[in-house]
Amino acid sequence: MPLPVPVPPEGVDPAWLPEQAFRPLGTRRVLIRGSGPLVDTVHGEVAAACERFGGRVDRDASPEPFDLSLELTGTDAAEAFTFERGAGRTTVTASGPSGLLYGLFHVVRLGEAAFRGEHRRERHSPALTLRMLDHWDNVAVHPVMGQVERGYAGGSLFWADGRARGDLERVRAYGRLLAACGINAVAVNNVNVHATEAHLLTDRIGEVADIAGALRPYGIRTHLSVTFAAPMVLGGLATADPLDEGVREWWAGATAQVYEAIPDFGGYVVKADSEGQPGPFAYGRSHADGANMLAAALAPHGGTVHWRAFVYDHRQDWRDRTTDRARAAYDHFVPLDGEFAPNAVLQVKHGPMDFQVREPVSPLIGAMPHTRLAVELQATQEYTGQQRHVCWLGPMWSEVLRLRPEEGASVGELARGGLVAVSNVGDDPFWTGHPLAQANLYTFGGLAWSPQADPGQLLDEWVGLTYPGASTGLWEALRKVLSGSWRTYEKYTAPLGVGFMVQPGHHYGPSVDGYEYSPWGTYHFADRDGVGVDRSAATGTGYAGQYTKAWAEVYESPETCPDELLLFFHHVPYGHELKSGKTVIQHIYDTHFEGVAEVEAAMEVWNSLAGLVDPARHARVAERYAEQLRSAREWRDQINSYFFRKSGVPDAAGRVIH
Amino acid sequence: MPLPVPVPPEGVDPAWLPEQAFRPLGTRRVLIRGSGPLVDTVHGEVAAACERFGGRVDRDASPEPFDLSLELTGTDAAEAFTFERGAGRTTVTASGPSGLLYGLFHVVRLGEAAFRGEHRRERHSPALTLRMLDHWDNVAVHPVMGQVERGYAGGSLFWADGRARGDLERVRAYGRLLAACGINAVAVNNVNVHATEAHLLTDRIGEVADIAGALRPYGIRTHLSVTFAAPMVLGGLATADPLDEGVREWWAGATAQVYEAIPDFGGYVVKADSEGQPGPFAYGRSHADGANMLAAALAPHGGTVHWRAFVYDHRQDWRDRTTDRARAAYDHFVPLDGEFAPNAVLQVKHGPMDFQVREPVSPLIGAMPHTRLAVELQATQEYTGQQRHVCWLGPMWSEVLRLRPEEGASVGELARGGLVAVSNVGDDPFWTGHPLAQANLYTFGGLAWSPQADPGQLLDEWVGLTYPGASTGLWEALRKVLSGSWRTYEKYTAPLGVGFMVQPGHHYGPSVDGYEYSPWGTYHFADRDGVGVDRSAATGTGYAGQYTKAWAEVYESPETCPDELLLFFHHVPYGHELKSGKTVIQHIYDTHFEGVAEVEAAMEVWNSLAGLVDPARHARVAERYAEQLRSAREWRDQINSYFFRKSGVPDAAGRVIH
Repeated sequence: MPLPVPVPPEGVDPAWLPEQAFRPLGTRRVLIRGSGPLVDTVHGEVAAACERFGGRVDRDASPEPFDLSLELTGTDAAEAFTFERGAGRTTVTASGPSGLLYGLFHVVRLGEAAFRGEHRRERHSPALTLRMLDHWDNVAVHPVMGQVERGYAGGSLFWADGRARGDLERVRAYGRLLAACGINAVAVNNVNVHATEAHLLTDRIGEVADIAGALRPYGIRTHLSVTFAAPMVLGGLATADPLDEGVREWWAGATAQVYEAIPDFGGYVVKADSEGQPGPFAYGRSHADGANMLAAALAPHGGTVHWRAFVYDHRQDWRDRTTDRARAAYDHFVPLDGEFAPNAVLQVKHGPMDFQVREPVSPLIGAMPHTRLAVELQATQEYTGQQRHVCWLGPMWSEVLRLRPEEGASVGELARGGLVAVSNVGDDPFWTGHPLAQANLYTFGGLAWSPQADPGQLLDEWVGLTYPGASTGLWEALRKVLSGSWRTYEKYTAPLGVGFMVQPGHHYGPSVDGYEYSPWGTYHFADRDGVGVDRSAATGTGYAGQYTKAWAEVYESPETCPDELLLFFHHVPYGHELKSGKTVIQHIYDTHFEGVAEVEAAMEVWNSLAGLVDPARHARVAERYAEQLRSAREWRDQINSYFFRKSGVPDAAGRVIH
Repeated sequence: MPLPVPVPPEGVDPAWLPEQAFRPLGTRRVLIRGSGPLVDTVHGEVAAACERFGGRVDRDASPEPFDLSLELTGTDAAEAFTFERGAGRTTVTASGPSGLLYGLFHVVRLGEAAFRGEHRRERHSPALTLRMLDHWDNVAVHPVMGQVERGYAGGSLFWADGRARGDLERVRAYGRLLAACGINAVAVNNVNVHATEAHLLTDRIGEVADIAGALRPYGIRTHLSVTFAAPMVLGGLATADPLDEGVREWWAGATAQVYEAIPDFGGYVVKADSEGQPGPFAYGRSHADGANMLAAALAPHGGTVHWRAFVYDHRQDWRDRTTDRARAAYDHFVPLDGEFAPNAVLQVKHGPMDFQVREPVSPLIGAMPHTRLAVELQATQEYTGQQRHVCWLGPMWSEVLRLRPEEGASVGELARGGLVAVSNVGDDPFWTGHPLAQANLYTFGGLAWSPQADPGQLLDEWVGLTYPGASTGLWEALRKVLSGSWRTYEKYTAPLGVGFMVQPGHHYGPSVDGYEYSPWGTYHFADRDGVGVDRSAATGTGYAGQYTKAWAEVYESPETCPDELLLFFHHVPYGHELKSGKTVIQHIYDTHFEGVAEVEAAMEVWNSLAGLVDPARHARVAERYAEQLRSAREWRDQINSYFFRKSGVPDAAGRVIH
């Protein structure tokens, strides 16, 4: 039986699955073979398209002329599919139901091309088995952080008014969008697990089960963030010690009940001993002890624990120049390599700090060969414009994933535990607040499926689906406003990798000294002579020495360190000459003027698209561009004024610095 | 009939009215003459004291040997009383009931001295008829500002859970404390009037009436903050234009109903066209038009409108160096002098900015001879340690009140419309959070009664009442920790009058650049060469020229400007030599080290008092000293590091600067 395609509420943007994207499929004769819930999903998709566009679909019928057959040939868990075309017929086969679903969306993506000429059989298989979104959604609205922590797209898709939403049709539509870009796992609540959210694990697991039920037809497994203190908070035990037998039994029992409610439950996500969350340190236990306890509870059911490596001292003394937050994850976790259970995944942020616009790749990645690592990206634009600025992160993520920390293996290959992104989605009609931020979500899915993919090609895929039948002009315009937007954002914000020049608390807009005297370990040390953090092994915090030899050598010296990370690794005088030939101070001035000019140009391009894109979408983006431009100018002027006041060096071009 | 003395809940600190303060009175034979509610209050006070300590009280009895007679001789509104002693009898007389109440508390203050020797008849009369506390209390908890805006003493005495408190016994006890230090008016809600609070004026006036009823027996009139937009918000009119006849009628009607509920209602407090509050500018009307409309509505009932002069552009562009927030009140209001109705009082903050630890006196005071001005102080320590730091403001307020802006008249004399303080009280057991902050409230009352009073003498009064029978050692210790605390606080915070180096939003703790690139008009312009704001008439914003000739000349030049205001009025190089002979930069270093040393010394003094003061009070103060010291060190290190990094000038004494 075909499963009906979800219908999101009136006014919700179709994102990359507009009806028109299904026209090529919907005008064909289609055969579907196989059985099971996901085959029903595929059947429903095809049936809806055929009904709309005049095609025909048959299920398990005998052979006769078909344009497309979608065939499930087995019952395994593989997500791969094959695609071929010959003798006028396109064939997709898969040995597992998810593969068939991905094959269907592959056909949608190809459009008419899927039905023309000949295609040799090709096999598509995700490079990573876990392609996950972490939602930092709160159930109860947090007094400071709101419904979604660091959320810039309205409320939560899952939770409202302290409970799971009753109508889950939009969650089903969300699952459909995710499947269409290859995502197969979702953690449905914030890693900062507050009092209300703790109960999702036990007496409120039914609400999680409802969400899991809505996501399941699109091949998505549901995960849950839990508090390490659950045995005390929920179980009334006197301890949460991971080696305590009672604690282990409590987790085993609680986990068994989770699986009764959600048989395909994915597992737990845990932020422990981090920014005030409880953890094993309180009991003198290691993070491997903590993770392995949960892994043991999950193992009988096939679940995984995602244990976050984001552990550092957030009560640092800014006067102390020897402690370096960038070192923390490596220092905490590398000694534990080999101690983690097979179903314990260490989830590592891609950079050593916290999702700044420019960071080096975390030295932890590649340094724990005996541990399954997942790499965590941030789709929600906490530090990259909060979905009021256009900042397509594809190129940044791709740079990270293609980098080779050690001989041979890239970050994308080392992420054996999966690729995870903090979600940028909410109940906003455009899903992501800024309509163009949808491209980040889509690109993430593509990179999780294939970390070596060309992000430009993923952007083209996204444009092709989102704007079916786009003219060359529209296509080029969209490429123009998106493709360079990350580097533009970098230009008008914190320079040369130094990071964290943002307003404390909400992190939007500039405040050069906002975190300079804070306990958060985020400093730039600007004085009248120079700026930057000396993280060299020779004279600094030693962080550069955490890398493998080749990278350690590159980062160790200002002469070899890439310009864009210079201030991350070195404290240099304002007159220091970059590889570009410019001084640091002149680079700061120039990039800030350039960045604003680039925003102005992009805004003009967008404005020229009025009439070519959906009016509501055009208006929303135009309104956000106005704010982006205002904010970019504020960034430019504050950063330039700050460094002019400190350095006293005038702009060589004589432009206005306030 | 004696009115029972209010009994605050168990555990509430008695502040300056402990039982023992009534012992001298309570052991005497007392005669009370006169009638009316306030005489009943006096009677109740004396009766309670006599019952406790074995004295005797008679009401309107025939003459026989008495130790003290308290006699009401008329029914006027005068608040004066006479005090004399002869032939073994102490006599207090008053022609109005409030006077008798103040006379009673005068006797309490004198203690045994009131019953010894001979005293020639002396008349005590308040210099100012309005001595008022403005509560910035919200009815509904504000999502950002909380129950009490800028409150550091817990919740509100008046409001909880969105409504007036049911039990008003503590409000009665509060009124008693206020009467004992001479305060006679209270505005019960925040000048930022939010949606819920707006309704106090109309359908929720009953709640205000209940509070007024609780305060009335102690001679305190109740005032209400109202929104200028009330005719629209509450009355459904299309405009709030002060010259619109319908608007004027609406206010007249609403006001008549207020007086039906509260016959002795004091009047309205209005913050208009200020920090986002609505006002007459929207209709092209002047602030005199706005104030006079409300004055007209209040006049038939004997009420007063307090119209705040805190009007400035809070969306200023930091790049614009010509606009100067300090100029705003003068620029807005001086042209209106002579236009305000007799019962419209213009309420002016004592300084031109916003209650910084050091500001010059507002040039508005003295510049509007045909307008009744009230001077507004801030007892709540928004910028002076938030009642976690000891900062007794008596000396600062006294300096302000004694200053003579023009030939002859002091600020205290020019404040014909009264002296007002933003309250520092909440539902905290110690009333003010920090027990020593009670001294600020008491001192404010004393200065409102007599602006020329010696603050040191008021402090002694407070110690005498609060710590009955204090030993010389205790007395001196309390003087030591309090008397210099304002200058200590000044030393370790923003230097030389520059102000606003605080963390944005909550305003606690240092952030040197926190408001430097903000829209709030609060800048210091520090660069690598110097610091301060040029407000001279010759080369700066012209603010110095707003003063009368003598002061304008003093402030105009760095050579004559007092050191402590140098950076308020001038931008000078770090090497500029102060009158003290020190350079500005060395002064910054020295005062910051001294300030912390002074906190350490005060903390030691306090710690030595363990066993000499009530244990709960001692513990609370000790705990706050620990925080004060931590915070003072943070201030010292941030300010010193900031200016060292900017100036590059080493400390002459070679102390550690991070």
